Amino acid sequence: MNAPDALAREKFTELLALTRAPFPASCKAYLPGQLHPDLRVPVRDITLTNGEQVSVYDTSGPYTDPDVVIDVRRGLPGVRSGWIAARGDTEPYAGRPPVALDDGQKSEDAERLAQLRAESAGLQRQPLRARSGHNVTQMHYARRGIVTPEMEYVAIRENGRRAWMQQYLQDAAREQRLRGNPLGASIPERITPEFVRDEVARGRAIIPANINHPEIEPMAIGRNFLVKINANIGNSAVTSGIEEEVEKLVWSIRWGADTVMDLSTGKNIHTTRDWIIRNSPVPIGTVPIYQALEKVGGVAEDLTWEIFRDTLIEQAEQGVDYFTIHAGVRLAYIPLTAGRRTGIVSRGGSIMAKWCLTHHRESFLYEHFEDICDIMKQYDVAFSLGDGLRPGCASDANDEAQFAELHTLGELTQIAWKHDVQTMIEGPGHVPMHMIQANMAEQLKHCHEAPFYTLGPLTIDIAPGYDHIASAIGAAMIGWMGTAMLCYVTPKEHLGLPDRDDVKQGIIAYKIAAHAADVAKGHPGARARDDALSQARFEFRWEDQFNLGLDPETAREFHDETLPKDASKVAHFCSMCGPKFCSMKITQEVRDFAAKGLQEKAVEFRSAGGELYVPRTPA
Amino acid sequence: MNAPDALAREKFTELLALTRAPFPASCKAYLPGQLHPDLRVPVRDITLTNGEQVSVYDTSGPYTDPDVVIDVRRGLPGVRSGWIAARGDTEPYAGRPPVALDDGQKSEDAERLAQLRAESAGLQRQPLRARSGHNVTQMHYARRGIVTPEMEYVAIRENGRRAWMQQYLQDAAREQRLRGNPLGASIPERITPEFVRDEVARGRAIIPANINHPEIEPMAIGRNFLVKINANIGNSAVTSGIEEEVEKLVWSIRWGADTVMDLSTGKNIHTTRDWIIRNSPVPIGTVPIYQALEKVGGVAEDLTWEIFRDTLIEQAEQGVDYFTIHAGVRLAYIPLTAGRRTGIVSRGGSIMAKWCLTHHRESFLYEHFEDICDIMKQYDVAFSLGDGLRPGCASDANDEAQFAELHTLGELTQIAWKHDVQTMIEGPGHVPMHMIQANMAEQLKHCHEAPFYTLGPLTIDIAPGYDHIASAIGAAMIGWMGTAMLCYVTPKEHLGLPDRDDVKQGIIAYKIAAHAADVAKGHPGARARDDALSQARFEFRWEDQFNLGLDPETAREFHDETLPKDASKVAHFCSMCGPKFCSMKITQEVRDFAAKGLQEKAVEFRSAGGELYVPRTPA
Repeated sequence: MNAPDALAREKFTELLALTRAPFPASCKAYLPGQLHPDLRVPVRDITLTNGEQVSVYDTSGPYTDPDVVIDVRRGLPGVRSGWIAARGDTEPYAGRPPVALDDGQKSEDAERLAQLRAESAGLQRQPLRARSGHNVTQMHYARRGIVTPEMEYVAIRENGRRAWMQQYLQDAAREQRLRGNPLGASIPERITPEFVRDEVARGRAIIPANINHPEIEPMAIGRNFLVKINANIGNSAVTSGIEEEVEKLVWSIRWGADTVMDLSTGKNIHTTRDWIIRNSPVPIGTVPIYQALEKVGGVAEDLTWEIFRDTLIEQAEQGVDYFTIHAGVRLAYIPLTAGRRTGIVSRGGSIMAKWCLTHHRESFLYEHFEDICDIMKQYDVAFSLGDGLRPGCASDANDEAQFAELHTLGELTQIAWKHDVQTMIEGPGHVPMHMIQANMAEQLKHCHEAPFYTLGPLTIDIAPGYDHIASAIGAAMIGWMGTAMLCYVTPKEHLGLPDRDDVKQGIIAYKIAAHAADVAKGHPGARARDDALSQARFEFRWEDQFNLGLDPETAREFHDETLPKDASKVAHFCSMCGPKFCSMKITQEVRDFAAKGLQEKAVEFRSAGGELYVPRTPA
Repeated sequence: MNAPDALAREKFTELLALTRAPFPASCKAYLPGQLHPDLRVPVRDITLTNGEQVSVYDTSGPYTDPDVVIDVRRGLPGVRSGWIAARGDTEPYAGRPPVALDDGQKSEDAERLAQLRAESAGLQRQPLRARSGHNVTQMHYARRGIVTPEMEYVAIRENGRRAWMQQYLQDAAREQRLRGNPLGASIPERITPEFVRDEVARGRAIIPANINHPEIEPMAIGRNFLVKINANIGNSAVTSGIEEEVEKLVWSIRWGADTVMDLSTGKNIHTTRDWIIRNSPVPIGTVPIYQALEKVGGVAEDLTWEIFRDTLIEQAEQGVDYFTIHAGVRLAYIPLTAGRRTGIVSRGGSIMAKWCLTHHRESFLYEHFEDICDIMKQYDVAFSLGDGLRPGCASDANDEAQFAELHTLGELTQIAWKHDVQTMIEGPGHVPMHMIQANMAEQLKHCHEAPFYTLGPLTIDIAPGYDHIASAIGAAMIGWMGTAMLCYVTPKEHLGLPDRDDVKQGIIAYKIAAHAADVAKGHPGARARDDALSQARFEFRWEDQFNLGLDPETAREFHDETLPKDASKVAHFCSMCGPKFCSMKITQEVRDFAAKGLQEKAVEFRSAGGELYVPRTPA
């Protein structure tokens, strides 16, 4: 290892240590299972200054648990290993022998590659696959009536701790006004393991969980569950090693990414993927055509089914949980994009379009779709059927090409389901607000309620530099309407590669969108956290207000810019109104008046000096 | 002037010079009137690298016109002075004599105040009022069938240049898919001066335009016009002088604020207001109760109708264009807030609640509402009927208190209209997505289509530090549904006072929301700018993509972080996909294929080497 590498590595090791710090006033806890008592379902418990506790969904994995010793060179413990083994339907096997080409034709020189691969030595696992004649997908189990540990895990995780929410849930039960509008979703008051099983069996939810990725904390993507978000990460052009690439993952899940897509291209993609998967407690998705293209030196027309198939197996053995596959980009649809303003904007879509045009043949992904299913079900890799013909601007939204592909994705969904392969459907992209509903309606109609997974959509095109906001609007709306997972967009969209802060900005914007959708749908308990925060705000419990927010650090920083003194953390006013005008404070008076009767109180109030705003000594 | 003051002043003078710089590739132009040929309606023309020109709505006033010499100590020229004089229904008069109390009981020491007031010497104007028996509101003229210069100005401004949009408008005309969904709005293909008159006459739009604010470039707020946004500014605790306070205004309108509310409290508020109004080309709104409260030393129960009335006249003479007046906070509604989670969160609302409770009397604002109308119509100050009982959190949304007040605002609207006083209605606040529609429906039903002016609404409560995003979602939706103006929220909401960058972040988020609403409503031409930008994106005209965006500087900066070299500004790829994967480029191929026939082209393509992605020599 040379000196700059060592320096960079040290930097990322330090960064990773920071990224592991627990959130303020927060403590990781684990909920046990009932059907499967060994389950340890993570939650984050936030202790408030008034002694109450609020418990929230936690995507950050063991990283924020100070009791867990983590060595990124050895990977996370295999939470699911025992469950998988207990099913007795898998077998270890030698696996596909690794070749240099797995890291791309333009990989580093042999020595450097060897060095990087050496770092992965502790991360190598013998792959599992389904025993002959078996199908190891969660959908397969679900359809045979089996409630897997993964399903019970998901049920517990979706409910969270309900005890602290009771006061808020009661309000909603009392007042019609406070109920959500699920727009056709069927969200039960309490998620049971059986409900999860049923949703997975009918294809309305997926639990991405490759048998070769036992490290994951299972989660569900489906219309009747909490709306999830995905963050994309990619390899660095010149990586300093494991710490750097893993830190990106840990950073993403810290802020709330429910799944992460590894969109690495170019050099060292196989090796980087080892690093990420072995250290990831969230499902990892990929777009295998990117790696396949690397293997043929970037020449789309040189792609073959054999190379693609080999790549699927390679990645399935590593443990990728879902594959984006653009099997709906059919030869006949490509001319439908000719009149578009921005043509084909999906990378995968354009690769396949080029292949189809050059050979004037139907897409090999479409033609080999059942062969792909055969691979998927041996590892339980889920389909994320890619929308290669998604619109790249508002004026291409909802056009013939887009919907033709969507209808094909619906057909393919039924084929996948014939094989009990879990499937979700990718969606746009760029869609003005008034055209969003049609996307959801078409998807529900033609894709048989398979989970929808959309990129935004961006509602306008004139906000480069702020596309996380332009798209959070569309994401919140489509999430409310039924989209199960929202793929984030960062401020750098259309302009460049996101840096660390961009990733965070994108994730927070999408947590906002997803939560807004959960609240609107009336997911039980979703609004309890809002209520707890508002209550803290009203009672001037500043620390609690920060700590209940999506980003406690930033909230505190912003507050402290104007009122940095510690004393103002308990001040009964904020810098916006100051002590004189505080409108929160007056409400206490209103309550007293209402309780005692207005007339009587007015007299009493006046005679007591009529002072509402007791001036504070400046801190 | 002491040394630190001189230094600060120099700093703000420099900042102001920067804030006056025209946008890149942009040039201010003026469109003439037909009925009133002397009109000079501003637009910003952006010249693209392909020779095309795109022209956009421009709120920045003369500040971005390098030909205009501006001296903030003398104020802007009175664009409307001639029009007002020509109507012959106003008279100059001595006006209310200024007193020290106008700058608050806690104003600076006498010497400092005298110094600050001396700076305003060049900004003093003799006030105008309606001649006895006259009513000088735009609504009054409109109802008498008069198309004022202000109305024609608005019509021209709303249309903008239509020539460059033709290609985009034709697409929309051809395809049903590309039309908006106005959700009940009646937006004509082209806004005529007569249409503006009719909208103002029936109260569905207002043109805030105090006769004592001749400096404004008239604009309209109404459901059938472009959605507008408001930015709030306030005085600095220790102001260095005119340059500092004016720069905030100029900064806000640079990024797109259509109106600005001066929410100054505490010291020097009268004097600061002189500085702002005399230098503002956009309508200025205030909440007069804030100043009235300063006059009684911050003791709400000491407020009287006489002090409030005096404040209204004082501010009307200065030229404030609209007043937020919380006349709907009636005594009987106050107990309705007792069960709320966060009570009364509006400052004005809580002041009035305190007054009503202490005296156990009906609000003097409600009781004197017709007296207030008598003042408004003498100067053409518009009502912004304040929602003092707006919800402060999701769980208080759409409750009895909120809607009781809204219904009263509807009654008051009809009283105001009896006096031909222009009126808009303020709205919330904090409203989850699924409860937004009910707000718009209630407002339309009870307030007779008077323009709705909402603060957000915030769709969730758990995003302190990011409330501009949480609220941009709600703002975009309610804008689509019919809200005419969106009051911005900055990232500092609930936490502290916004700084210069927060103001910009808030404004951009709200320009996104407003534009998303315009596009969804199908405002003719709104989407043309999106199309032009997308076209530039597709054709790799990077400079044009930046310059057509809401914030060219940031877009360019973000791009340059990854690809700083000038050569990459014309590169046919971006850093996200690189030269290999560029999906935009393949579309050109698709078009050729579609044009020539697929089979024939496939052969030709292969025989030509099949190269789509011509590698570029690194710049």
